[in-house]
Amino acid sequence: MRKIIVQKFGGTSVADTEKIKNVAKIVIKEKENGNDVVVVVSAMGHTTDYLVKMAKDLSPNPSEREMDMLLSTGEGVSIALLAMAIQSQGYDAVSYNAMQAGILTENIHSKARILDIKTDKLKQNLKDGKIIVIAGFQGVTEEGEITTPGRGGSDTSAVALAAALNAERCDIYTDVEGVYTTDPRVVPHASKLKEISYEEMLELAHAGANVLHPRSVETAKLNNVPLRVRSSFKLNNLGTLILGVDKMELNKPVAGVAQDLSQARIVVCDVPDKPGVAAKLFSKLASENISVDMIIQSYARKVSNTNDIAFTIDKSDLNKTLVALESLKAEIGVTGDIEVDENIAKVSIVGAGMIDRPGVASLMFETLAKQGVNIRMISTSEIKISCLVDKAQSAQAVKALHTAFNLDCCDIADVKGDLPNV
Amino acid sequence: MRKIIVQKFGGTSVADTEKIKNVAKIVIKEKENGNDVVVVVSAMGHTTDYLVKMAKDLSPNPSEREMDMLLSTGEGVSIALLAMAIQSQGYDAVSYNAMQAGILTENIHSKARILDIKTDKLKQNLKDGKIIVIAGFQGVTEEGEITTPGRGGSDTSAVALAAALNAERCDIYTDVEGVYTTDPRVVPHASKLKEISYEEMLELAHAGANVLHPRSVETAKLNNVPLRVRSSFKLNNLGTLILGVDKMELNKPVAGVAQDLSQARIVVCDVPDKPGVAAKLFSKLASENISVDMIIQSYARKVSNTNDIAFTIDKSDLNKTLVALESLKAEIGVTGDIEVDENIAKVSIVGAGMIDRPGVASLMFETLAKQGVNIRMISTSEIKISCLVDKAQSAQAVKALHTAFNLDCCDIADVKGDLPNV
Repeated sequence: MRKIIVQKFGGTSVADTEKIKNVAKIVIKEKENGNDVVVVVSAMGHTTDYLVKMAKDLSPNPSEREMDMLLSTGEGVSIALLAMAIQSQGYDAVSYNAMQAGILTENIHSKARILDIKTDKLKQNLKDGKIIVIAGFQGVTEEGEITTPGRGGSDTSAVALAAALNAERCDIYTDVEGVYTTDPRVVPHASKLKEISYEEMLELAHAGANVLHPRSVETAKLNNVPLRVRSSFKLNNLGTLILGVDKMELNKPVAGVAQDLSQARIVVCDVPDKPGVAAKLFSKLASENISVDMIIQSYARKVSNTNDIAFTIDKSDLNKTLVALESLKAEIGVTGDIEVDENIAKVSIVGAGMIDRPGVASLMFETLAKQGVNIRMISTSEIKISCLVDKAQSAQAVKALHTAFNLDCCDIADVKGDLPNV
Repeated sequence: MRKIIVQKFGGTSVADTEKIKNVAKIVIKEKENGNDVVVVVSAMGHTTDYLVKMAKDLSPNPSEREMDMLLSTGEGVSIALLAMAIQSQGYDAVSYNAMQAGILTENIHSKARILDIKTDKLKQNLKDGKIIVIAGFQGVTEEGEITTPGRGGSDTSAVALAAALNAERCDIYTDVEGVYTTDPRVVPHASKLKEISYEEMLELAHAGANVLHPRSVETAKLNNVPLRVRSSFKLNNLGTLILGVDKMELNKPVAGVAQDLSQARIVVCDVPDKPGVAAKLFSKLASENISVDMIIQSYARKVSNTNDIAFTIDKSDLNKTLVALESLKAEIGVTGDIEVDENIAKVSIVGAGMIDRPGVASLMFETLAKQGVNIRMISTSEIKISCLVDKAQSAQAVKALHTAFNLDCCDIADVKGDLPNV
């Protein structure tokens, strides 16, 4: 029984015809390894930006249906070109758009989720020896309407295909060499991880590491599909394998440090201290589709019988949030101001091994204290601790934590990650 | 009962977003006239050339299936952008690719003919007040494979849609103002025809006038769909109406003069004068997909019992033709040379009214004689007379014929076209 490998190539990997030839070589090598290969491709380089620009020329607010029609053409180009490049090397290949590949989604434009993938035709093609090239970032509804999956969609398409085809692995080829212990632009001696668990990857992604979109990791976790993130330009580097925590060789206390500079902190001052007020506030925000990340409610002041509620949101939701809060102020009896701080950063450490190691949180706080970094909010999950700090001190905090948790490394070898004595 | 107008816009009409806005205005104006509007659009400007160039970078001979996949993306962009432009003016519009529009073709890549168009969804959309924007130059097979129709395909798609929808008219918007009595680059005072019959248009097209591809005219004739050719940039000009000869106001003896510089003449010398030889020769060429236009066989020479066979072909088929003839020479016993002349031109006069007017042919020959133009081959149909002349004298011949048949005109008014006394 031949194994199926799903490969996914992002826009930078297919940015021009020379790069497409390079991708064809990678695909053919996997086929030569004795595997069946299904390739998922994004639109070439800046195609999507170019298409969006033309749309904005024509309409300030183009309909989502027509945007989906427009953007889906980008992958139409790259799949056909890649199939040609593979064929020109003497291999049988066929390209399919989402409609032809049978990638069925919800009937929601611009952020549709995949419902089902019809694999009969694909399996027959593989049996016939064909390499299949499929358009990422698109799907089709039962009614034949073209949809797109929203951010991270091509990765998610690839993972969903791997799950539907019961593939051995899904390889995400991109312009980075793998998942790093932290952003190498902040810490130059950050090291590439050989492996990481789905859960850690999810926390890193949510904490601001942009390698993979959380939805693709969630889909991989749900279907137990091993994911490999690697560079399409440095092939001697195997990248990072993302897999179930039970299958990992090494369970480090801290796998990585992340920073997220996209959040804003809001403090609603002098909120009446009575039941149901916080619920009203956050259900209002939820109804406006605003995601709230960290939340802190202060102790109630005895004199005024009020407290302050602080939380963080994505900066892109700031205006929407302030409008929602303003409309709510009278209703819940807020007497104080609404304070906004955009000069903040969320610094997080992530590691599946921190559960059994109580010293991790205190080492984090001590490290930040030694650097004179003031912690303004804290939130924790089972495998993550996040601290809100001043934006100006964020890089310094990341560097110090990276060193403190023994993540510094000079080569791309695997990180030891032993917890130092604390 | 509202009337349906099908409009077709070529690549130059939608070359950039400004031009797409212009097209949206034209579409909306037709809707405001109280008609239902279905628009067929080609790919933007030079998109197709750009896609072909990338394909050639990857493969000297890309597969026709993948070329069809690739080229169909061109219209995918223009239909979505045009739908957005229409929507931004407050009108309801929806774009469909060929798969969504149900344009069913044969399972032949790069030159598929339309078999059927499913109109239920389209008719419902029109009933709902929507303007429909459909991708030209593409179709889909029963199996969901994408096809393209070959040259002139977008015009043919538009006409076939007009026929399927029982449309009032099909308007072909292009970069010329209509059909002229001859090529205005050759005769600057050529005049635009107000109307012309399908048959005349077909003969003009085959005789080298490049306004419409013959297949679209044939489809219009077969389904009795009136066609209007007009400019998308000069809207006060109604262009030329192409319709059944029975519906024309005026039946001119000669509607136009055409020249075709794309042919080469071949003379096969000393062919045995016995039955079946010509049949063998031309069936060989037919089996190689070579179209032969004019044919002349000389009287047999008594002494050698041989004759010469002369014919014209498209220059692009020249090499293929010579190879075929060489392989045939021994088989049919040709003893002479094969002569090739590429410095020829075919000059034709076309007119549905020439049938009842015996003076037309002789006026043509006299006119050419007066100009010292030697006629090397003649062929005739019911509504066309073609003469093969030296290429160097072609423009002179066209000008003289244009004057002799009273087609000279200084404005764009309709041509009188009375036959002069001969």
